[in-house]
Amino acid sequence: KNIVLLPGDGIGQEVIQSAKQVLEALSEEYQHTFTYETHSIGGSAIDEHGTPLPEETISACHKADAVLLGAVGGPKWDQNPSHLRPEKGLLGIRKSLGLFANLRPVQGFDNLLHASPLKEEVVKDSDLLIVRELTGGLYFGTPSERSEDGESVVDTLAYERSEIERIVEKAFQAANIRRKHLTSVDKANVLESSKLWREVVEEKKADYPEVTVEHMLVDATAMKLITNPTYFDVIVTENMFGDILSDEASVLTGSLGMLPSASVREDSFGLYEPVHGSAPDIAGKGVANPLAMILSAALLLRHSFHLESEACLIESAVQHVLDEGYHTADLNIKDGQQVGTEKMTNLVIDYIK
Amino acid sequence: KNIVLLPGDGIGQEVIQSAKQVLEALSEEYQHTFTYETHSIGGSAIDEHGTPLPEETISACHKADAVLLGAVGGPKWDQNPSHLRPEKGLLGIRKSLGLFANLRPVQGFDNLLHASPLKEEVVKDSDLLIVRELTGGLYFGTPSERSEDGESVVDTLAYERSEIERIVEKAFQAANIRRKHLTSVDKANVLESSKLWREVVEEKKADYPEVTVEHMLVDATAMKLITNPTYFDVIVTENMFGDILSDEASVLTGSLGMLPSASVREDSFGLYEPVHGSAPDIAGKGVANPLAMILSAALLLRHSFHLESEACLIESAVQHVLDEGYHTADLNIKDGQQVGTEKMTNLVIDYIK
Ligand SMILES: CC(C)[C@H](C(=O)O)[C@@H](O)C(=O)O
Ligand SMILES: CC(C)[C@H](C(=O)O)[C@@H](O)C(=O)O
Repeated sequence: KNIVLLPGDGIGQEVIQSAKQVLEALSEEYQHTFTYETHSIGGSAIDEHGTPLPEETISACHKADAVLLGAVGGPKWDQNPSHLRPEKGLLGIRKSLGLFANLRPVQGFDNLLHASPLKEEVVKDSDLLIVRELTGGLYFGTPSERSEDGESVVDTLAYERSEIERIVEKAFQAANIRRKHLTSVDKANVLESSKLWREVVEEKKADYPEVTVEHMLVDATAMKLITNPTYFDVIVTENMFGDILSDEASVLTGSLGMLPSASVREDSFGLYEPVHGSAPDIAGKGVANPLAMILSAALLLRHSFHLESEACLIESAVQHVLDEGYHTADLNIKDGQQVGTEKMTNLVIDYIK
Repeated sequence: KNIVLLPGDGIGQEVIQSAKQVLEALSEEYQHTFTYETHSIGGSAIDEHGTPLPEETISACHKADAVLLGAVGGPKWDQNPSHLRPEKGLLGIRKSLGLFANLRPVQGFDNLLHASPLKEEVVKDSDLLIVRELTGGLYFGTPSERSEDGESVVDTLAYERSEIERIVEKAFQAANIRRKHLTSVDKANVLESSKLWREVVEEKKADYPEVTVEHMLVDATAMKLITNPTYFDVIVTENMFGDILSDEASVLTGSLGMLPSASVREDSFGLYEPVHGSAPDIAGKGVANPLAMILSAALLLRHSFHLESEACLIESAVQHVLDEGYHTADLNIKDGQQVGTEKMTNLVIDYIK
């Protein structure tokens, strides 16, 4: 199995090494052979190749069995014209690989919950999954341009019925193997696209009789995520709403540095990345938290390689290390011990062995 | 001065009476003469006139000096075709009156903060104002339609430069008389409209040298509102982002039932309504909290009639009543006393007198 590593920028460079080391330790234990190829994306690709998404990165990803991505972006490229921005690499690779489903699980870790901005009784036991449409909607619709006289501007939120069907399908599947509660989020009282979205959800629900489905407006959802996060199991929504709601959800449990994500398509291919960004302020210092990246590697094993017990082993290792009180500088555990990126990675590997 | 009352649906019918009684008590004290005309909107207008926004409602509002609105919507009309939905009345009146600026202040009340889902130390002293563009963007752009074969759908996010200029201007003015910190929220790493938005903000800032301005991405803002609400003073953003973020912000302080809003244009005309909805489950029972509606009347006096001390008197009255421990069923105050809509209204009026 061939894995493409895209370290990207900032702490992406460091944490991706941690994930690779964990994967190597695991493949030794289980006698798997994974091969790795590293390619550039984002700001570092702009510096090396003059583009945030070099051709050779695209073709390597197309040939790979799965992709791990660190993070992209940083102040160095913030003033660049838009085609030379690191994010364009990320948007481009998602689109090019057809990764239409972004899976964002949000779960609390008991000994980190104290860092949540929410009261412990509100957030305790939250365990939700946001399924975000990732290759359509406002992000990619045309026209997206300014008029010639510069006086007006337009962006387009466009969907094909088939694009809605496949993401809704993914969400039903996810709900079906979880707590069987699906919340479809839209703005059907304003948007035509939301009305089609609702229709598709209504059509699909016959195929999943055990899943309870409801529709919720995006503004109401933004409220309920805060007042009652445990209410949710699986949320499915379009690209821009998903961008906002999944980031909102990511801070609820107080451990943003722990959250992995998967971007997948119909076959088992996928790209896996931590939810946190490139954190340029702490890059290169050896203090970054590698756990979200390591947990992203677990998602890779589960979704792309169907290695469920290997994925579980990584997840238990992370839980174990936290239970022992080890944490990186971004977190705090009562009576715990603060460690750097390398030490944290080795603690996870020790448990695996 | 002529005020049009649009009670709308559910508890809107009850709370608008409270606001009117408070205004009458006040005008007696201050020797003002306000006249009132009541017109229908939303679900009740559908029932009476077959449309959520009757012509006579529109023309009465155009002739008025200001408008007070209760709330629209309810399960009774949820299955209606979209032109016969209560919300269309609200969207229509905003557009028809040119109310491009929606002002949504979010403030905590010390003795209600315990009801916040956030930890008290996180939310204490939050005091922010969201300035939402209300008559453009995804809500009104064309095309907004399904293709003939039903296989694809499109909505349009469109802005004229002048539409962005006037809302940004409003936000700078608001920041200038507050803590002089303006956060302009966009998705400039993806949307063309956001790039024009940023440019306009950059152009306007020369006119307000005392205001500190920053740009923040909408996803990052959705996070920071929860992790650090006291960071914000004034937020300005486009219609759909504003819808989501202002509802998110409205639950932070634990007192949604206390929040007023104003929808205004360049002249001093405006429409004032509580942030909460029509609450059909408690409608007609005499238990609804009238304070958000009463505080909306205070905003009317301040913004449309320039009666600052009258507005302040209402606000002090509300604060005083809460300090005395009185609250409606939606709230809870330690060692306080629960009262109904009428009693709460009379307590406010007693203080005014
Ligand atoms: C970097 C940006 C374009 C991207 C997005 O909006 O999709 C990011 O916020 C994310 O959610 O992965
Ligand atoms: C009812 C709905 C159309 C409306 C909006 O989205 O503008 C409401 O959510 C609001 O924020 O006033």
